[in-house]
Amino acid sequence: MNVEIISIGDELLIGQTINTNASWIGKKLSNIGANIVKSVSIADQKNEILDSLNDIKEKTDCVVITGGLGPTKDDITKHTLCEFFNTSLEMHGPTLEKIKVFFALRNRPMLESNNLQAELPKSCQILENNYGTAAGMWFERDNTIYISLPGVPYEMKGIMTEEAIPKLQSLFELKSMYYKTAMTQGKGESFLAEIIKDWEEKVYSKGLSLAYLPSPGMVKLRITSTNGDRDAKAIDQLFIELEKLIPKNLFGYDSDTLPSIVGEILKSKNLSIGTVESCTCGKLASYITEVSGASSYFMGSFLTYSNALKQKLANVSKESIEQYGAVSEQVAKEMAEGGRLKLGVDVCISTTGVAGPTGGSEEKPVGMVWIAIATCDQIIAHKFQFSQHRERNIHMTSLCALNLLKNMLSE
Amino acid sequence: MNVEIISIGDELLIGQTINTNASWIGKKLSNIGANIVKSVSIADQKNEILDSLNDIKEKTDCVVITGGLGPTKDDITKHTLCEFFNTSLEMHGPTLEKIKVFFALRNRPMLESNNLQAELPKSCQILENNYGTAAGMWFERDNTIYISLPGVPYEMKGIMTEEAIPKLQSLFELKSMYYKTAMTQGKGESFLAEIIKDWEEKVYSKGLSLAYLPSPGMVKLRITSTNGDRDAKAIDQLFIELEKLIPKNLFGYDSDTLPSIVGEILKSKNLSIGTVESCTCGKLASYITEVSGASSYFMGSFLTYSNALKQKLANVSKESIEQYGAVSEQVAKEMAEGGRLKLGVDVCISTTGVAGPTGGSEEKPVGMVWIAIATCDQIIAHKFQFSQHRERNIHMTSLCALNLLKNMLSE
Repeated sequence: MNVEIISIGDELLIGQTINTNASWIGKKLSNIGANIVKSVSIADQKNEILDSLNDIKEKTDCVVITGGLGPTKDDITKHTLCEFFNTSLEMHGPTLEKIKVFFALRNRPMLESNNLQAELPKSCQILENNYGTAAGMWFERDNTIYISLPGVPYEMKGIMTEEAIPKLQSLFELKSMYYKTAMTQGKGESFLAEIIKDWEEKVYSKGLSLAYLPSPGMVKLRITSTNGDRDAKAIDQLFIELEKLIPKNLFGYDSDTLPSIVGEILKSKNLSIGTVESCTCGKLASYITEVSGASSYFMGSFLTYSNALKQKLANVSKESIEQYGAVSEQVAKEMAEGGRLKLGVDVCISTTGVAGPTGGSEEKPVGMVWIAIATCDQIIAHKFQFSQHRERNIHMTSLCALNLLKNMLSE
Repeated sequence: MNVEIISIGDELLIGQTINTNASWIGKKLSNIGANIVKSVSIADQKNEILDSLNDIKEKTDCVVITGGLGPTKDDITKHTLCEFFNTSLEMHGPTLEKIKVFFALRNRPMLESNNLQAELPKSCQILENNYGTAAGMWFERDNTIYISLPGVPYEMKGIMTEEAIPKLQSLFELKSMYYKTAMTQGKGESFLAEIIKDWEEKVYSKGLSLAYLPSPGMVKLRITSTNGDRDAKAIDQLFIELEKLIPKNLFGYDSDTLPSIVGEILKSKNLSIGTVESCTCGKLASYITEVSGASSYFMGSFLTYSNALKQKLANVSKESIEQYGAVSEQVAKEMAEGGRLKLGVDVCISTTGVAGPTGGSEEKPVGMVWIAIATCDQIIAHKFQFSQHRERNIHMTSLCALNLLKNMLSE
């Protein structure tokens, strides 16, 4: 099943909105064995939409279109599809009922514009929307299926999951691609490639392909097989070999995240955790608590942005701040140990650094960060030098802290 | 100047990576007056790349291509461009020098794969990369410019900003589009549309266009003029009228964020702030400190995930937790007031809620959140009912807290 994705919206082209819908659709459909050939973003203008629909290649089995189905005047997809499929709108009773119930349940008045959302093209099948007021539409022509969905992500996801994907699966015999991805932290793409060069050759020699997917602080290594899961065992074996090559960097697979892995370790060892954060200011704790159920090991934190609060809350000594500065090994260690005692936790991570873009000095440039971890029997501290970029530095610090913790607890 | 963007990478199609590059390029080029016609993502396969290059419409003046220039084996863009432009690779001395310096400065050994990155197509002009090892390339053919850039976002951004955009601006006389966007929080798209119906008509009657851009918790309202900044005054006047219609919701314009606006107000009133967070667990503080210089008003926080820490750190009474539960008006207020006193700040925001997806009850369903704000002369508290979605609930709570604070401080 060859799929093209068309995302409609000026906001995507001028960069006001990042197109997360196309990624989500790509992921879901790849997982059921579809081949995503292309993903196009275009303006919400009739001619652009019609052009894209006319450009669809013959080999394409399914086109997924998102956007332009809202209740406001700039939403023109429905009308344009009527023109393309040479049909017209009519009031769709069940959808109107659904919209009425939607508003009644929320105790909100129904607006005329919502009423009009129940007018749908005659020639399409309706895909029910259980999360909003814009129904999905399913058209068929010349052996190609066209699915039109609202652009609001959770409505689109709902309709895809509950309606469109089951319908597609019942129509196509899908040959699965099989993917497995190792998640690594702490080494750049070129360096990884150098370390794992021979291993990489081995991957290719088995007829599999390897992709390096770098993102700030992480590189994902994805092996793809076109034989479905028949290569699953060979791939598992390859990854076991990879783990031995980069044990401090490879932390998990596929949907594993550093917070989920760290959470598993903490639970298995029955350890509680807290943080004392300066430069990351809550980011590290928010990563740890991304995991539902984190309350069984995460207790709480001090965010000590000011030096006064570093002293008052985390027992950092005034002398250390004066002698070494707030961004120093000494202060990082005192923060971690003070936090461990005052939060009453088994493990405490601290961060202190110059997030930037201002505030750097020759001795302590922007991007310099100290991370410390205190447990009942040791305190470790590591220095990192990141970039000029505030948001990236905060993110990298949080990731590195979690990876340090993972390695410390795994020893 | 009509622009098409081509993003190369399997990871974009199968949804492993969200395409932030295309948005960024779209935004930058729109801002200098380019018309982004289309943005396409394709697999890193030679045929797909060649197909897309051959599909470029005649009216397209500039094609920006990202991805596939890394040092690893799955990077094939350079070779494919050689084929398309009928040229071959040769070692580019200045680029090789640059790569050598890049590694020397970082005190890292240079790898053979990095060496090969200095081999570049003969027929292109080189765009210098000051942030990494993959140079940008500029080709011209039949009145179309083709720019090929690495996919690593900060390298791509560096080359665009320092090399490609100045070159484009010197070649094209660009007629500016003019955009201004109002940022609103707290009302959904349909409800906003109903409230501002007459105002919207007025926008259209002036020959301007309006777009609603919803994202979780926010709706951006963007007015576009095709007359460059000649309509700027009329647009400003329209937005002044809009502010009167939705004073509690419209919080700023364009690059304004709730954290930046709240920061401005706190600075102007010389107030310090802290947070006591349960369900948001650092997200609210991390939003506040997204703003560089936030240390002049943000002091610190207690993240009190456990009930024990709510009592110990923020002075919440055991009785209130037992009588009303942790997610209650009473506890939210005690958290805010306790935090204000113990953090020693002028204003303290607290959050407590059921983030989900587990932990809900009939009385306190998933998505139920209390937010309180304490100042020296009052404590307010508001209840919200969000969705089933953990990440969204945490985000929405943080946004609503900031908007509540903005409205409270603006009174």
